Amino acid sequence: MATVAIVMGSDSDLSVMKKAAEILEHFGVDFEMRIISAHREPDVFFDFAKEAAANDTRIIIAGAGLAAHLPGMCAALFPLPVIGVPMQGGALSGKDALYSIVQMPPGVPVATVAIDGGKNAGLLAVRMLAISDGALLEQLKEYAASQKEEVMQKDARLQQTGYKAYDR
Amino acid sequence: MATVAIVMGSDSDLSVMKKAAEILEHFGVDFEMRIISAHREPDVFFDFAKEAAANDTRIIIAGAGLAAHLPGMCAALFPLPVIGVPMQGGALSGKDALYSIVQMPPGVPVATVAIDGGKNAGLLAVRMLAISDGALLEQLKEYAASQKEEVMQKDARLQQTGYKAYDR
Amino acid sequence: MATVAIVMGSDSDLSVMKKAAEILEHFGVDFEMRIISAHREPDVFFDFAKEAAANDTRIIIAGAGLAAHLPGMCAALFPLPVIGVPMQGGALSGKDALYSIVQMPPGVPVATVAIDGGKNAGLLAVRMLAISDGALLEQLKEYAASQKEEVMQKDARLQQTGYKAYDR
Amino acid sequence: MATVAIVMGSDSDLSVMKKAAEILEHFGVDFEMRIISAHREPDVFFDFAKEAAANDTRIIIAGAGLAAHLPGMCAALFPLPVIGVPMQGGALSGKDALYSIVQMPPGVPVATVAIDGGKNAGLLAVRMLAISDGALLEQLKEYAASQKEEVMQKDARLQQTGYKAYDR
Amino acid sequence: MATVAIVMGSDSDLSVMKKAAEILEHFGVDFEMRIISAHREPDVFFDFAKEAAANDTRIIIAGAGLAAHLPGMCAALFPLPVIGVPMQGGALSGKDALYSIVQMPPGVPVATVAIDGGKNAGLLAVRMLAISDGALLEQLKEYAASQKEEVMQKDARLQQTGYKAYDR
Amino acid sequence: MATVAIVMGSDSDLSVMKKAAEILEHFGVDFEMRIISAHREPDVFFDFAKEAAANDTRIIIAGAGLAAHLPGMCAALFPLPVIGVPMQGGALSGKDALYSIVQMPPGVPVATVAIDGGKNAGLLAVRMLAISDGALLEQLKEYAASQKEEVMQKDARLQQTGYKAYDR
Amino acid sequence: MATVAIVMGSDSDLSVMKKAAEILEHFGVDFEMRIISAHREPDVFFDFAKEAAANDTRIIIAGAGLAAHLPGMCAALFPLPVIGVPMQGGALSGKDALYSIVQMPPGVPVATVAIDGGKNAGLLAVRMLAISDGALLEQLKEYAASQKEEVMQKDARLQQTGYKAYDR
Amino acid sequence: MATVAIVMGSDSDLSVMKKAAEILEHFGVDFEMRIISAHREPDVFFDFAKEAAANDTRIIIAGAGLAAHLPGMCAALFPLPVIGVPMQGGALSGKDALYSIVQMPPGVPVATVAIDGGKNAGLLAVRMLAISDGALLEQLKEYAASQKEEVMQKDARLQQTGYKAYDR
Repeated sequence: MATVAIVMGSDSDLSVMKKAAEILEHFGVDFEMRIISAHREPDVFFDFAKEAAANDTRIIIAGAGLAAHLPGMCAALFPLPVIGVPMQGGALSGKDALYSIVQMPPGVPVATVAIDGGKNAGLLAVRMLAISDGALLEQLKEYAASQKEEVMQKDARLQQTGYKAYDR
Repeated sequence: MATVAIVMGSDSDLSVMKKAAEILEHFGVDFEMRIISAHREPDVFFDFAKEAAANDTRIIIAGAGLAAHLPGMCAALFPLPVIGVPMQGGALSGKDALYSIVQMPPGVPVATVAIDGGKNAGLLAVRMLAISDGALLEQLKEYAASQKEEVMQKDARLQQTGYKAYDR
Repeated sequence: MATVAIVMGSDSDLSVMKKAAEILEHFGVDFEMRIISAHREPDVFFDFAKEAAANDTRIIIAGAGLAAHLPGMCAALFPLPVIGVPMQGGALSGKDALYSIVQMPPGVPVATVAIDGGKNAGLLAVRMLAISDGALLEQLKEYAASQKEEVMQKDARLQQTGYKAYDR
Repeated sequence: MATVAIVMGSDSDLSVMKKAAEILEHFGVDFEMRIISAHREPDVFFDFAKEAAANDTRIIIAGAGLAAHLPGMCAALFPLPVIGVPMQGGALSGKDALYSIVQMPPGVPVATVAIDGGKNAGLLAVRMLAISDGALLEQLKEYAASQKEEVMQKDARLQQTGYKAYDR
Repeated sequence: MATVAIVMGSDSDLSVMKKAAEILEHFGVDFEMRIISAHREPDVFFDFAKEAAANDTRIIIAGAGLAAHLPGMCAALFPLPVIGVPMQGGALSGKDALYSIVQMPPGVPVATVAIDGGKNAGLLAVRMLAISDGALLEQLKEYAASQKEEVMQKDARLQQTGYKAYDR
Repeated sequence: MATVAIVMGSDSDLSVMKKAAEILEHFGVDFEMRIISAHREPDVFFDFAKEAAANDTRIIIAGAGLAAHLPGMCAALFPLPVIGVPMQGGALSGKDALYSIVQMPPGVPVATVAIDGGKNAGLLAVRMLAISDGALLEQLKEYAASQKEEVMQKDARLQQTGYKAYDR
Repeated sequence: MATVAIVMGSDSDLSVMKKAAEILEHFGVDFEMRIISAHREPDVFFDFAKEAAANDTRIIIAGAGLAAHLPGMCAALFPLPVIGVPMQGGALSGKDALYSIVQMPPGVPVATVAIDGGKNAGLLAVRMLAISDGALLEQLKEYAASQKEEVMQKDARLQQTGYKAYDR
Repeated sequence: MATVAIVMGSDSDLSVMKKAAEILEHFGVDFEMRIISAHREPDVFFDFAKEAAANDTRIIIAGAGLAAHLPGMCAALFPLPVIGVPMQGGALSGKDALYSIVQMPPGVPVATVAIDGGKNAGLLAVRMLAISDGALLEQLKEYAASQKEEVMQKDARLQQTGYKAYDR
């Protein structure tokens, strides 16, 4: 199976979670993407999360909204890192999902990123893999350099055009 | 097994959850009380929740704090009513637990009561059982009458003593 | 009268509350639906809630927004289960309604569901009735199976199309 | 009966509500104080609120905590001003009571004061009565003058002692 | 001058504050409406608020958003009732205005209504005036009756059409 | 270099930050505007903030959203006043940025203005410069007078047209 | 009069506001400290704030809790910088004061520091004065160096003792 | 240097951060612990974070309270995983620190754990290292088993003693 599993409880989470996938593709990390609901198919979920480590999955990225239990339950069943992505949807704008994911009790950690933070979830997974992968670490440094370059170019353009003419 | 199962993830929840037990005792409803953690022993939890209905449990009352997954995961596995009790503990005073319990996605309901609402969880279970149990319904009416009586006596005492001398 | 009464304070709540009605229809549970305001016609409301149990209503589902008093006042007058549905409308996005419904004082419980959780209110009512109705319990298990099937089909489609081509 | 009725749902609210009483005494406004629960004795409450205007009550000051329905239900039944006092108690520190009292729907207003604002509730009642009572209006001006005097004396003392020696 | 003064700090508040005006017109209460900013023209504001009582104004209705100081400063300068209306505008959706208006320190009360509660502000003013005006009190009872009638008609229509065909 | 530096972490902040620039232009204060990210180019940022004082910059206005570190890190490196502008963007509507900017630990202050408060950031900078610049102080008084005039004209128009015909 | 005026609405704010005074003393900046309430003595307040600039006050530091109007009203009357300090007291832990101070409308800025941030208010005032005072700027750099030294010594002690023996 | 660096901005964070250290000791992971303030000694901090990867540090655990910039700035400078621990201290009970840490912009992730979640920060670091360390993975499974055992023993004791006699 894949090194990273990206799971979400509903296909409405796909637009956020695919940003994680795009990052993993960019860095050449193999991944699988699954729609699995801890609430609507707990047994399917249970088997998935329990078997993931034996199937060579090293990291699970789990996105969920509202009373977001998917990341925490993954972390209960899977012994390696789980990255949780709170979704913005619903009346509470993702504050419910953020609290449901980040406030895990002592003993079962979830590495939580920002609300709708699919891209950072992907980058965090790459950083974790780079702990023991020097080539990935180099790629991360290049990625940081390109981020820097992008901001510098925007600033240069602002200096040229002035703020009144600057067009995003 | 018992008609009502009271479960909590940690014995630190006991002081709140025993109020549910006291109500069930008062109404003569048989119950069992369990410490089961969805996070720290997911397989024990899974078996408990999956088997509960077959074991004649009709209602689960589940208390949890922080990222409170226990009630929602019970509702995913147990087809009858689950009553969720958010615990106040932690930096967010139970708002995290409230959101984690009440904001369940469509399809999997949890009957949520107030933060630290152990007593109301017990009363809600009795009300549910009273749907098909006329004797319990009568008991509930008596209980309501005694609650009313208690407030009336306090008011009478206040009228007698005046507010300056009134001593709670 | 009907087994379940669905009440709301304003017809602006209808789009959410009809999801409860659709669930009850799906499960063959008879219900009535009422627009009754605890604030604008307290005497009509009072009579309704006080007589409901005698009229064979077993469960009240009450939806309300803002300073949402309808569910709690139902629970004060009606001895059987009251399910409260907080509405999202207004400047506070339903947080006001959620607190007004869920934070009931000890003695008078309201079974609160998510903000705009009309569907789960219906399902919770069915679960309550299933406590003493084996046929309903079987229907609930089928319903859970169909929910599971639906998620599995989405996942299968995702595996087939890949995340880039997946179209909700 | 009295011009102002001070009601509260529980005697735990007395320490806050007596500040309203002290203000009314200071201004010579007659009042009665009642412990009446909208939740635990809705019929007693209903009769009280419905009859209050006929009994010459001109203003109701209602204090409540948690899912605070008492002020709003008073306003539904009593046609003259209702002043609501949210109580601080509970896990949400009175934010629940504040929202439950202030966020009343169009048509049924509650004049809400600060959390634990018993004193201001009393003063607001006096201001309302002073609309048609010139003597009370004079008293209010004197009261304001004495408040001003009090602050000026503190400032004078601070100038004398300096901030290091100032002792509250 | 007029019995009631409706003031707002910006003409962006007009759409909410005119609901207060419409209520006062409905009840035949004379009023004036002013745009006066405590922040942008403190001396104009100061004179207005200080002179209002001498000019026979009996009640000030003050609307404000963001760091809403207008109602509280009115209450500091004007000895009769001030009704505060928090506006929804801005990043915090009116929670900032609500807190800035309702959390007045002991000694200086503001009668706060709901966020964007212009209509209830008008009704609260009428209720205050009705303390000493029997004709207004009768009008308020009629108003309540018409509100009740309106809800009853909606309910009757719902019973006739059924919830599927009901059209707001 | 310029007296005031306006910096932002992303060009998406430009629509808010240019209001600061417009104010500085209005008052004839020279400024430069930069896009510099503390997160994406920490070394560029570090050099900028460290050298700013030596380059005759007297005030930094820094805008940032989400986990807004730019203003606080400026204040850690630049010994003169830093004005922080929280941006509204994202799921938490700028509350995250507000807390990240205003809750600085003792020792390192940031002068925080309202969410999206670009205009006030500019005015605050002018007020700071006016401490030692009598001409600027005069300009500020004229500016206040024109603000007052603007409100007075709106009020005059309202008196003329009446609230029903008033057109913003 | 003094260069900096420290004002507070109540002597209960003194324990926080004296931290500002201590900083000003440390840096040799002359200041006066006043207890003046915008709510309880608006005319005294009005005169103070209106005359402050003419009396050579260059900066006002204003502390307030609850519906904190003092800083914003200072900024309406005083054309130079106003620094606002939200106080923690009350049921909402200072969030009400923070919003009431920071969310000022466009045109009237308040430089807001953290809740209970008396020390940073003092430091911000010094930074503002240092814009045109090179000696103060040097003092600020020394202050920053001593802050750095303090942290470095703690770290050195931690390295020596180890975390188990480290005693704050 | 050490595999894991535990950094905190103030020694007041030590009581939480030492729980991370205890976990690392339990799992035999070498670590160093530092008190380094991004705000009070930005250059020391900058050098530390910039050099950490070259010094063989693989993970940084950073704890901070209030406007918590330490974790995010570490993530800007250090290319491998940064784990952020929000501290509870201050008027906002750690909600400010949580938002300041978790709401990082796209491109620079911080793996955030619960408020005061020092223990989970340690466990998350171990999980990350176990990605490429089979022995650590085995230890994690044993740790999970012992957590399960602990809960089971508590439950067994509860069954024996009953809830009335159960003594934590």
